[in-house]
Amino acid sequence: MKVQPRTLSGFMELLPRQQLVMEEIMGVLRETYALYGFTPLDTPVIEASEVLLAKAGGETEKQIYRFTKGESDLSLRFDLTVPLAKYVALHYGELAFPFRRFQIGKVYRGERAQRGRFREFYQADIDIIGDGKLDIVSDAEIPSIIYRAFSRLGLQNFQIRVNNRKLLSGFYAMLGLTERSGDIMRTVDKLPKIGRDKVRELLTGELGISPESADEILTFISITGSNSQVLDALEIYRGRNERFDAGLEELATVVRYLAAFGVPEERFAVDLTIARGLDYYTGTVYETFMTSHPEIGSICSGGRYDNLAEYYTDKILPGVGISIGLTRLFYVLNEQGLLGGSIGAPADVLILPMTEEIAHAAVLATRLREEGVRTQLYTEQKKFKARMNYADKLGVPFVVFLGEDEVREGLVSCKDMASGEQRKGPLQEILAWIRETLARQSAGAIIRE
Amino acid sequence: MKVQPRTLSGFMELLPRQQLVMEEIMGVLRETYALYGFTPLDTPVIEASEVLLAKAGGETEKQIYRFTKGESDLSLRFDLTVPLAKYVALHYGELAFPFRRFQIGKVYRGERAQRGRFREFYQADIDIIGDGKLDIVSDAEIPSIIYRAFSRLGLQNFQIRVNNRKLLSGFYAMLGLTERSGDIMRTVDKLPKIGRDKVRELLTGELGISPESADEILTFISITGSNSQVLDALEIYRGRNERFDAGLEELATVVRYLAAFGVPEERFAVDLTIARGLDYYTGTVYETFMTSHPEIGSICSGGRYDNLAEYYTDKILPGVGISIGLTRLFYVLNEQGLLGGSIGAPADVLILPMTEEIAHAAVLATRLREEGVRTQLYTEQKKFKARMNYADKLGVPFVVFLGEDEVREGLVSCKDMASGEQRKGPLQEILAWIRETLARQSAGAIIRE
Repeated sequence: MKVQPRTLSGFMELLPRQQLVMEEIMGVLRETYALYGFTPLDTPVIEASEVLLAKAGGETEKQIYRFTKGESDLSLRFDLTVPLAKYVALHYGELAFPFRRFQIGKVYRGERAQRGRFREFYQADIDIIGDGKLDIVSDAEIPSIIYRAFSRLGLQNFQIRVNNRKLLSGFYAMLGLTERSGDIMRTVDKLPKIGRDKVRELLTGELGISPESADEILTFISITGSNSQVLDALEIYRGRNERFDAGLEELATVVRYLAAFGVPEERFAVDLTIARGLDYYTGTVYETFMTSHPEIGSICSGGRYDNLAEYYTDKILPGVGISIGLTRLFYVLNEQGLLGGSIGAPADVLILPMTEEIAHAAVLATRLREEGVRTQLYTEQKKFKARMNYADKLGVPFVVFLGEDEVREGLVSCKDMASGEQRKGPLQEILAWIRETLARQSAGAIIRE
Repeated sequence: MKVQPRTLSGFMELLPRQQLVMEEIMGVLRETYALYGFTPLDTPVIEASEVLLAKAGGETEKQIYRFTKGESDLSLRFDLTVPLAKYVALHYGELAFPFRRFQIGKVYRGERAQRGRFREFYQADIDIIGDGKLDIVSDAEIPSIIYRAFSRLGLQNFQIRVNNRKLLSGFYAMLGLTERSGDIMRTVDKLPKIGRDKVRELLTGELGISPESADEILTFISITGSNSQVLDALEIYRGRNERFDAGLEELATVVRYLAAFGVPEERFAVDLTIARGLDYYTGTVYETFMTSHPEIGSICSGGRYDNLAEYYTDKILPGVGISIGLTRLFYVLNEQGLLGGSIGAPADVLILPMTEEIAHAAVLATRLREEGVRTQLYTEQKKFKARMNYADKLGVPFVVFLGEDEVREGLVSCKDMASGEQRKGPLQEILAWIRETLARQSAGAIIRE
């Protein structure tokens, strides 16, 4: 009796060609994060439930993969933030602050299975944690890293939208609506979908807000334009609420430094409608959108928080971070046909030995690998047609043939599988041709808009 | 009330400097495996218990992390081989055979907690899977990849030991001891520890083997010398058992091709005492030892198997593979003080702005990153001494100072933290100095014997 092989629903398992693209994406993220002086971190997938769920509650708790093993009550991590908080609290004395870490890892949430929803998925997080204090400049550096990462991936039409929670809560305090600000933000969030009139109706109706305040809110939320135009427009509110003023100051600083960190003006925008649901965030907040595919929603979000590890330690550890939901991003880009990838094959060259003795071919494979060319040697006893089918199926850009003639003459025959062009020559000459062609092909972007 | 932060015992969690070394090791493995045309694979950590445990039993089953979530009976993978079998059976029609994959991933075994034993650990596997057949040349290519990977990591004194199970079982069949071969191999395994006389005693006593057979076994097992000497010595047994002859043929072919694949003679040895406990292996078997640290035991092992996925499919899928127990290897190398790593810091350069306005410093950081230099910008308002302490704690090789003078003159001041040398000059000049110094430092091996 055979067991039917299957992969659990909600768990992404890619075919080789797609996996290669995923690896390329993760490689670019790792490289970019490292370029900004972030240290890689790797924490366990399993933690003691008591530790992992110190803070959790409600929806989150229901989704946790929690179980006992022996005497231990264990849980699988559901994000990379709680493990970071634990790590920093636990190793506080051995870390240098500001502590900059990135982590790319799988997290687990037992959500209802549905298309495009994953129970096991990668998050790619960066965070900067201060000890007691953390300067606002970090709030500008974080989105600049995301800008570079997405640019390197080939994304062209995206925008990082920035706002500040102090600014928002200060504004609602001015109107005497501090208590209602959560409800108001949720209502205002519907603006793009239901329109201005409908939002006004909900504000004055359901929420019982005065018509004057509703108009104030709608006016505020409608402030748009270039970043300096928006910041200028916000100046008229200055002096009425301390919290608002502090938020405005922070926002202006972030905007100013974003440029110094090399982010072009068109790639970021102050957007007063960005609020982020979580109470967790206390200052700067970010969302990132593909402007040519707004239907995808935010592909990367985060913000500033006051105290990372309050459940574990008395130390005050403010931080700022951002997270890419990598598995979901990969899924939607793939669905939309936007994924490229430079080569898309596990090898650059497939060597087909045309003689019975294949030691020559093995030596050639070794030579090519020493030259840094990803090389596979085909060693099965199959007909020529089957071998070429294999090359096609792998998608290798080059096939090298090594027959009696080539071995005797000390030459190599090589076929460019894309163009069909075939050349015969000394190894160094063929190698140069292969390298040149590969360099041209790998100039292609990973994400192709 | 604070929750005491802790990491479960048996779960490795590294400090930043060690983690950087671990990442370097994983990077070298990924790069090396890719050079040989292996495709990366990533399968879920969680599988349906029915699928994952199709084959398991006994010891393995007890160690499994198994639990229910809703209606589902789930298990965490305990190796990367069973998920590979599932993957190949499930996606058979979409794969090209021979299918070459590598996977570096965490696996879970609820072993008794003890020093150096891990419950969550990385395995780094490579396998080549054939469809119906797989040529013996693959058995020589697999250890050649391990040779290159370990060499690149800096290992100098290691040896890959090769044997063949057909040769062993053929030999025991000659003596009419097929039924006892398992017991015999386990006894013979003790040779280095208890000596020849004691082994002979156990064979003739406990196992009830005739003195003549015991001597034959001890003579066979004592065949040593260069690879060709061992192969020559084995020739005297040829013609007495088909299975033995097939094994000898395979072993001789593996030895011949290992040289063609670029493995120096001193890095591999035919070793007739290598048997590998698992019945799973049916032909070539490998173990790898650090010759200067034999106490560490095998750091990489594997072999040839007849049928990867028999529990899932009727297809005959023979394969050959090898696995590095990465977490354990890292642990023992670290314990022995053998781990280096090229830089050991999260950044190459730390910029310390000496002015209040740090936009200039942000621009400089952006420039350096564009040049591919891993750069961190220090933005906290701290005293000079605290800043230099931070640089020391991070272990950054270079600190760049940017004061009023430098900004006005368009120059950069830079200190080599190792030598203490400080230079001031135009960015390009300083950059060249940094690059030169880094290149010299990163020539250091990751594993330092």
